[in-house]
Amino acid sequence: MPKVGIVMGSDSDMKVMSQAADFLKDMGIDFEIRIISAHREPEVFFEWAKNAQNRGIKVIIAGAGKAAHLPGMCAALFLLPVIGVPMKTSDLGGVDSLYSIVQMPSGIPCATVAINGGKNAGILAAKILAVSDDTIRKKLEDYSKNMKEEVIKKDLKLQEEGYKAFE
Amino acid sequence: MPKVGIVMGSDSDMKVMSQAADFLKDMGIDFEIRIISAHREPEVFFEWAKNAQNRGIKVIIAGAGKAAHLPGMCAALFLLPVIGVPMKTSDLGGVDSLYSIVQMPSGIPCATVAINGGKNAGILAAKILAVSDDTIRKKLEDYSKNMKEEVIKKDLKLQEEGYKAFE
Amino acid sequence: MPKVGIVMGSDSDMKVMSQAADFLKDMGIDFEIRIISAHREPEVFFEWAKNAQNRGIKVIIAGAGKAAHLPGMCAALFLLPVIGVPMKTSDLGGVDSLYSIVQMPSGIPCATVAINGGKNAGILAAKILAVSDDTIRKKLEDYSKNMKEEVIKKDLKLQEEGYKAFE
Amino acid sequence: MPKVGIVMGSDSDMKVMSQAADFLKDMGIDFEIRIISAHREPEVFFEWAKNAQNRGIKVIIAGAGKAAHLPGMCAALFLLPVIGVPMKTSDLGGVDSLYSIVQMPSGIPCATVAINGGKNAGILAAKILAVSDDTIRKKLEDYSKNMKEEVIKKDLKLQEEGYKAFE
Amino acid sequence: MPKVGIVMGSDSDMKVMSQAADFLKDMGIDFEIRIISAHREPEVFFEWAKNAQNRGIKVIIAGAGKAAHLPGMCAALFLLPVIGVPMKTSDLGGVDSLYSIVQMPSGIPCATVAINGGKNAGILAAKILAVSDDTIRKKLEDYSKNMKEEVIKKDLKLQEEGYKAFE
Amino acid sequence: MPKVGIVMGSDSDMKVMSQAADFLKDMGIDFEIRIISAHREPEVFFEWAKNAQNRGIKVIIAGAGKAAHLPGMCAALFLLPVIGVPMKTSDLGGVDSLYSIVQMPSGIPCATVAINGGKNAGILAAKILAVSDDTIRKKLEDYSKNMKEEVIKKDLKLQEEGYKAFE
Amino acid sequence: MPKVGIVMGSDSDMKVMSQAADFLKDMGIDFEIRIISAHREPEVFFEWAKNAQNRGIKVIIAGAGKAAHLPGMCAALFLLPVIGVPMKTSDLGGVDSLYSIVQMPSGIPCATVAINGGKNAGILAAKILAVSDDTIRKKLEDYSKNMKEEVIKKDLKLQEEGYKAFE
Amino acid sequence: MPKVGIVMGSDSDMKVMSQAADFLKDMGIDFEIRIISAHREPEVFFEWAKNAQNRGIKVIIAGAGKAAHLPGMCAALFLLPVIGVPMKTSDLGGVDSLYSIVQMPSGIPCATVAINGGKNAGILAAKILAVSDDTIRKKLEDYSKNMKEEVIKKDLKLQEEGYKAFE
Repeated sequence: MPKVGIVMGSDSDMKVMSQAADFLKDMGIDFEIRIISAHREPEVFFEWAKNAQNRGIKVIIAGAGKAAHLPGMCAALFLLPVIGVPMKTSDLGGVDSLYSIVQMPSGIPCATVAINGGKNAGILAAKILAVSDDTIRKKLEDYSKNMKEEVIKKDLKLQEEGYKAFE
Repeated sequence: MPKVGIVMGSDSDMKVMSQAADFLKDMGIDFEIRIISAHREPEVFFEWAKNAQNRGIKVIIAGAGKAAHLPGMCAALFLLPVIGVPMKTSDLGGVDSLYSIVQMPSGIPCATVAINGGKNAGILAAKILAVSDDTIRKKLEDYSKNMKEEVIKKDLKLQEEGYKAFE
Repeated sequence: MPKVGIVMGSDSDMKVMSQAADFLKDMGIDFEIRIISAHREPEVFFEWAKNAQNRGIKVIIAGAGKAAHLPGMCAALFLLPVIGVPMKTSDLGGVDSLYSIVQMPSGIPCATVAINGGKNAGILAAKILAVSDDTIRKKLEDYSKNMKEEVIKKDLKLQEEGYKAFE
Repeated sequence: MPKVGIVMGSDSDMKVMSQAADFLKDMGIDFEIRIISAHREPEVFFEWAKNAQNRGIKVIIAGAGKAAHLPGMCAALFLLPVIGVPMKTSDLGGVDSLYSIVQMPSGIPCATVAINGGKNAGILAAKILAVSDDTIRKKLEDYSKNMKEEVIKKDLKLQEEGYKAFE
Repeated sequence: MPKVGIVMGSDSDMKVMSQAADFLKDMGIDFEIRIISAHREPEVFFEWAKNAQNRGIKVIIAGAGKAAHLPGMCAALFLLPVIGVPMKTSDLGGVDSLYSIVQMPSGIPCATVAINGGKNAGILAAKILAVSDDTIRKKLEDYSKNMKEEVIKKDLKLQEEGYKAFE
Repeated sequence: MPKVGIVMGSDSDMKVMSQAADFLKDMGIDFEIRIISAHREPEVFFEWAKNAQNRGIKVIIAGAGKAAHLPGMCAALFLLPVIGVPMKTSDLGGVDSLYSIVQMPSGIPCATVAINGGKNAGILAAKILAVSDDTIRKKLEDYSKNMKEEVIKKDLKLQEEGYKAFE
Repeated sequence: MPKVGIVMGSDSDMKVMSQAADFLKDMGIDFEIRIISAHREPEVFFEWAKNAQNRGIKVIIAGAGKAAHLPGMCAALFLLPVIGVPMKTSDLGGVDSLYSIVQMPSGIPCATVAINGGKNAGILAAKILAVSDDTIRKKLEDYSKNMKEEVIKKDLKLQEEGYKAFE
Repeated sequence: MPKVGIVMGSDSDMKVMSQAADFLKDMGIDFEIRIISAHREPEVFFEWAKNAQNRGIKVIIAGAGKAAHLPGMCAALFLLPVIGVPMKTSDLGGVDSLYSIVQMPSGIPCATVAINGGKNAGILAAKILAVSDDTIRKKLEDYSKNMKEEVIKKDLKLQEEGYKAFE
């Protein structure tokens, strides 16, 4: 039974949202992934978000761009944490998406990550589940260690080969 | 039977939205005015917007601030024109509200007016109704004339009394 | 007799504005489309906007970029609804166009859609006409249904083929 | 044993951060609240964040303004979820705080809420704990119901007394 | 016969625009000052701007706020230099006014000064006239000297009394 | 003897500034064009700007990008009109250049045109000279007429060939 | 002999700049403080900045607002480090000042601190001098310790009296 | 023994940061260059910054993008000057990086240079060292002269070959 629901309003957001899916897969966390538009099919969306808890969903990751209402409307309909991913936009760079997601009114928070931060949304969902799941916590520790080692490796290369090697 | 539905998510928006109501009253246009929150009571909101057309509503004026989803979600649920009024915000000046309302994705337009533009929302609703209602059109012509005359009066005062009279 | 007037100041805006034209054509709504510059030929523009109502025009769609005055000046000269389309700009992304169109002073509203939102301008014009035209209303319902079905189709593909199929 | 750690760099942030504390108290969730500066006492901060998990902390809420590094540095040192609260600033309105918190690089997410969103940070922390705690989940449902009722009450007043009653 | 035409759309701009008038008066330059709205009385505006050259006007100073079209429309109708003064706005600080005035399309320049820069608009008009008027040029030299002396006086006070004297 | 001085701090601005030069050439107005950096060779710059009036220069056109000080420093050293051209920048789009040029303090105006508005700077310079030069005024009238005719031609093509012809 | 030169274009900047002076005084660092305007008295400014090194000045702290050219022009004329302090502005919040100071072109850096960061400019000047002055370095260590202790004291109060004590 | 420490969180910043290294090399200033992430390996970072002074480092140059905490955290741990280089970002152009670096709170300044200003960071480090090192000062004078000569050469080409030669 999936614990995380990934949702986006359009398949044009898949490139960013698939990074969340990839990370959850790596962590061994079950998820469902859906293309549902709060604007184009509000009833479908409404049903999906309203019933997510009954399906066992513990965290929703919602990605949207421009006047991005999907994450906030998820937060209005789903009691547990909702993570919002603001999409980069071609005209305003994604500030429109960011403001539409992060500036939620009092009472209805949306846990917002960086513009195009699909991967970080996946990590944040894993962290939320790790609060009560030691297996995930352990895996996150390993992930964290790997990140450190990759930086150390790059620095080693820098010390050995000099900075011109990175050009 | 009301032709215009005015809706806002919080009574803190009333100061701006009442300007729309005042204008419609002046034009003799029937309206309903509601405090309904898309975030705090999505089912109530959903029903209201979904059934608006059946109640005879021809235009919705929706005001909201910050991550302002009310106007766009009205546009998702109501087939006829929706006018969005972005509220000024104390931190970002209302750019957050503006982007959340105007940057709607393809297929679901929201007719956006200026930040805090409650009165202009009322006027725009009247113009939309005037497309098929000569009485309203006539009244809008009168309103337009009055606006001109007020400017002319101020300029007359300026020519007669000089610019120091305005300090 | 055309019911909608589409106007732009330069043929460089055609790529965006033709989306409005295409939509109106799909809806079976007659329109005129003009290249008229408020800045470069103010008299021509003045005459066109002033006489639009006499020609039967019910809604004007005006697109402009940078210091975008065309939509607002239409709103000053034409009593019925004016829809403004802010063009994306290469330096400021279109915020300049957006502010120049949406921030209209009290008394002269301009129904603003998203940056480069040509199609949404066409849809909004149709919605305005649909207030008093059941044929257009019916067509808009069909359009709305089609939009929903397209999203559902994409979600079906996602459920059947998995998210890697979208890469 | 406290489950949530609230931290801020300066007592000038207390007005906003105390809203998180108030909410957690209302939910019956134990928390610790600290004034610790990542910039002025990095060693103290480092120890606090590094050992938070050992003290039983499941979620950190970190508030900071301007070049706001506290939330992101918490996220670097604490494996479980970190919620960032960007403070409004007197010159830039809080965009500086917001960008410094939300735009975290890949691998180190920070769950960002609205500018000055202290209360929403408290609610989000409760939601995260509610993933594995039915008592908190129940209380959040009640809180959610109360919010709805308050809006309904205001709308009732509006229907009964008219919109002039809100001026 | 006035050489400079000062125009604004609303008497709310007078506080800023009167600084231009004051400066011109100090320089002994004749000017006319008008409240004319391009939006509320386009015909009046059109006539005024179109005939300005015939009345002997050499430079127009136009002030406007929000979606500020007055300066740019002056530039469309008046062949000689137009100076635009963007008004500070309560929500966006005047960026809306600034973009609406300075970002004029190719062919129709508008000489833009700082937000609320009424005095600088007056000075710029004087500089433009000084190109062919030695009396004004002489007066501008004196004005320039006075400015320098005032700074020097303040610095003298600083050297004599110390910086605490300025608190 | 040149009447207009065109100056830029770097040859990377030439693509924009040459549009000013081209326009002046078309108008038959003599100009000098220089690459002088206020930052890299302040003494050379100082001498050039200080002596410009003695060389017969009536208007300076100064282009600069980023922290653009050249136009404002010209305005500090040259008594007659200075036109500033803000260069588009690769990171901030030119807002940095624009603010650095247009927001001049009281007493030292800089006539600012649009970002990358090299041609408009040339036109504005011609308009300033046209205040006292009927030949230039005549040429500007012709230029203005040509602009109108070009728009009319494009509209004619649109009416004859339809909007699909512009794709 | 003063080692630091503090300069501002107007006495309205004194409230911010005096914080730099206060800090230097506390550190026992000699400084000169001047009101000199690069725009209003370029020759005076030029001489001052050009000769600063001969007077023994090792660091310049320059504060300016709006189109803030003073710090950058100091950097053009003075070989050693220049620290720029962007002033908060009433319309744009100080973004104009910030961009005008920080976005210096290649070759001419200006060490920029936060908007209204007068005190931090003083600290940075002390740090620069501390590179080769152990007495100042020692004092900075003490200052750093004091800052830490003040935060610890506040946290102690919080632990003892609770967060309501800060309201 | 290196006098300057160059540090960046990711090798993707090398293209910008290597410009600092190149300049220091040209000036004959010893430096160390490291890839260390404050977010991914806080302990490594902590040790590096804390011990930098003991290794003889006099100035740190830290580059970072997005929610850029590296420069500010260096400034928290290192007593002597820290220069921050904000990286250009693909969505927000680097405003996020800039605000995260320049808007440091009182007590902990970070000497910020322009977005992507790697070279200027190197120059600023050299200027700081030149305060007490006449050899570096001499080299900086030569560098300054070369910059002037390059501009003069370009202007000579312009005077000899005309502006069309630059196209």
